[in-house]
Amino acid sequence: MEKQVLHIIKVGGNIIDDEIRLKGFLEHFASMPGNKILVHGGGKVATQLAKELQVPQQMVEGRRITDKDTLRIVTMVYAGLINKQVVASLQALGTNAIGLCGADAGLVKARKRSHAQVDYGYVGDVTEIGSARIDALLREGLSIVLAPITHDGHGQLLNTNADTIAQEIARSMSSIYHTVLVYSFEKAGVLLDAEDNSSVIPRIDPALYAELKKDGKIFAGMIPKLDNAFQAIASGVGKVIIGQAENLPMLVNGHAGTTIVP
Amino acid sequence: MEKQVLHIIKVGGNIIDDEIRLKGFLEHFASMPGNKILVHGGGKVATQLAKELQVPQQMVEGRRITDKDTLRIVTMVYAGLINKQVVASLQALGTNAIGLCGADAGLVKARKRSHAQVDYGYVGDVTEIGSARIDALLREGLSIVLAPITHDGHGQLLNTNADTIAQEIARSMSSIYHTVLVYSFEKAGVLLDAEDNSSVIPRIDPALYAELKKDGKIFAGMIPKLDNAFQAIASGVGKVIIGQAENLPMLVNGHAGTTIVP
Repeated sequence: MEKQVLHIIKVGGNIIDDEIRLKGFLEHFASMPGNKILVHGGGKVATQLAKELQVPQQMVEGRRITDKDTLRIVTMVYAGLINKQVVASLQALGTNAIGLCGADAGLVKARKRSHAQVDYGYVGDVTEIGSARIDALLREGLSIVLAPITHDGHGQLLNTNADTIAQEIARSMSSIYHTVLVYSFEKAGVLLDAEDNSSVIPRIDPALYAELKKDGKIFAGMIPKLDNAFQAIASGVGKVIIGQAENLPMLVNGHAGTTIVP
Repeated sequence: MEKQVLHIIKVGGNIIDDEIRLKGFLEHFASMPGNKILVHGGGKVATQLAKELQVPQQMVEGRRITDKDTLRIVTMVYAGLINKQVVASLQALGTNAIGLCGADAGLVKARKRSHAQVDYGYVGDVTEIGSARIDALLREGLSIVLAPITHDGHGQLLNTNADTIAQEIARSMSSIYHTVLVYSFEKAGVLLDAEDNSSVIPRIDPALYAELKKDGKIFAGMIPKLDNAFQAIASGVGKVIIGQAENLPMLVNGHAGTTIVP
């Protein structure tokens, strides 16, 4: 029997932060037929709450150092506020969404990061995806909305990069589904000029990627996303697409954004 | 075929607020075999966060007036912080818990309360339980941990009384399961003397309840709980038990607390 298609869609913090753009994105997401998982980031809401609560925030290479108080904040904002607002919106749009974090049903297990130079605090690196459980929920006709909070299996919640979660889920589900991983954010795709949304590179293979990196044409923020994408392709993910959240239907149909191919 | 037993256990805010008592309670919950749903309240964490964020709180007859900012707070605290910490703890104890709110999978739908005298704000009264969906999750071997946040089906989250949610779920699931509804909190049961945990009334039927109310022997905070309990019994719930969270195994076995009978 041919594998069914499963879309795993990551939506970035800048879209989450913008009520109008989020609404448009969710309408597109709701209108997509078939199996789908939405992985959302957090963005400025957590930073704003930390400020109001006077919990100082520290970022190292785009990653949030997560002390005990910050973990409380991201758990509240990502797994509570954002996750449930997205679910309620999708329910209103006729999508039977279920909002979860990695601890729920043991979907995403992680290990507290240990690093020689930097103490990231309660930051987790993914070690295990509960793919059978994800499959069971999808078979129930549910669309999973996943917040980037995981657990270590010993009762500790961990803050985990949403891009990585999306990628690990896509990899893990590729044995059961034909997976399409979409990184949707505020840019039109992988750009030759970070300030020019019309400079999208429609298709990147490993050779072109190596060349672009060598020439310094990929801006720093894109590199972890692309590294993730190539890792995903290398481990069985059918397709990776990077592009603008508002263009979701065109991204999914391959008419916009950047497609990463083997 | 005989119906399977389903335990629906409400745990009160005072237990949630107390790390040691919560730990003990969750160990007992995890050790219970079979189908189980945990409905948790919120308690002081939300009030404390509201204070830190300088969002004034107003209570009317034990119910929190829920303006827009307060809804954000209870969504973060109940559906985020508390729900996910409980799930991570249960996962560590070997229970495959899934943390949800009423919006998730459309489990609990509610209507914004309209009241002639009081504007409760974003408070919802339960209108519909997704019992088929709850059944499907239980059949997957999952234990549901439910936060008292619901939705109206039009994208609005609503703050909803956890006792009522537990009761409505128990009623609704009674067509599929033999339901046992447990209200667990800091008191040993329904007490003749609110200050004396040894004055537990082991068994209350409607006649005794009428008498106790008439004589003013039931303290005010207990009355909504008991009204709920008798409503539940009248609509098919097998048994309602009220008692101390730390005594969960004895409550469930009928060796502690107060049992409400038809």
